[in-house]
Amino acid sequence: MAIPTSDDAKMVIVVRADLKLSKGKTAAQAAHAAVNCAFASKKKDPRTFDKWFAEGQKKVVLKVQDLKQLYEIKAMADASGLVNSLITDAGRTEIEPGTVTCLGIGPSTDSMLDKITGDLSML
Amino acid sequence: MAIPTSDDAKMVIVVRADLKLSKGKTAAQAAHAAVNCAFASKKKDPRTFDKWFAEGQKKVVLKVQDLKQLYEIKAMADASGLVNSLITDAGRTEIEPGTVTCLGIGPSTDSMLDKITGDLSML
Repeated sequence: MAIPTSDDAKMVIVVRADLKLSKGKTAAQAAHAAVNCAFASKKKDPRTFDKWFAEGQKKVVLKVQDLKQLYEIKAMADASGLVNSLITDAGRTEIEPGTVTCLGIGPSTDSMLDKITGDLSML
Repeated sequence: MAIPTSDDAKMVIVVRADLKLSKGKTAAQAAHAAVNCAFASKKKDPRTFDKWFAEGQKKVVLKVQDLKQLYEIKAMADASGLVNSLITDAGRTEIEPGTVTCLGIGPSTDSMLDKITGDLSML
């Protein structure tokens, strides 16, 4: 699959809306995903990582309705060979230990990511 | 200042509550701070970074009431020599371009960070 090089790079973080996490908890989970994806991407695809970082590390936070939909998104990211990181909460507060909360994908190009997450709404 | 080595490592992200950012916007801003602090810390203080990362990269998201209080926290972090990153939003949505939204600090030990942010409430 050709990746248009003129495309902006972004990272997408997809959060489970059904858990109704607080603002602070959501922020912490998204931050876990972003850190994991950033380090994995720097290793696996340094050119895309450097472009993304230099452009101001654009991040978009979207929502899915439940765990099933989150796994569907992950399966598509895997099939496209995109760096991604599924976050499982340690469960100190709000939710049960081991609850899957969100998924980070990328950084990659807008067009690659929009094929997978283009239909999702902003959180 | 002695750093007790038995202390857990954590990263603190301090968010301006007065901006009343949405959940998604807050998550994106916190993720910026976390990525910046993680890379800066890996370079400046790899031992603390490695400990924090190996322990599951604990993150705590706290709130301040306004920009003035955020700058006070940053001044204390600087004075203690702690890695920190002030995030200014690109302003695509919700707030004016150039608005300072949050501050990441660490990772460092619980005791070091609690001296600076111990009085702040969870977001």
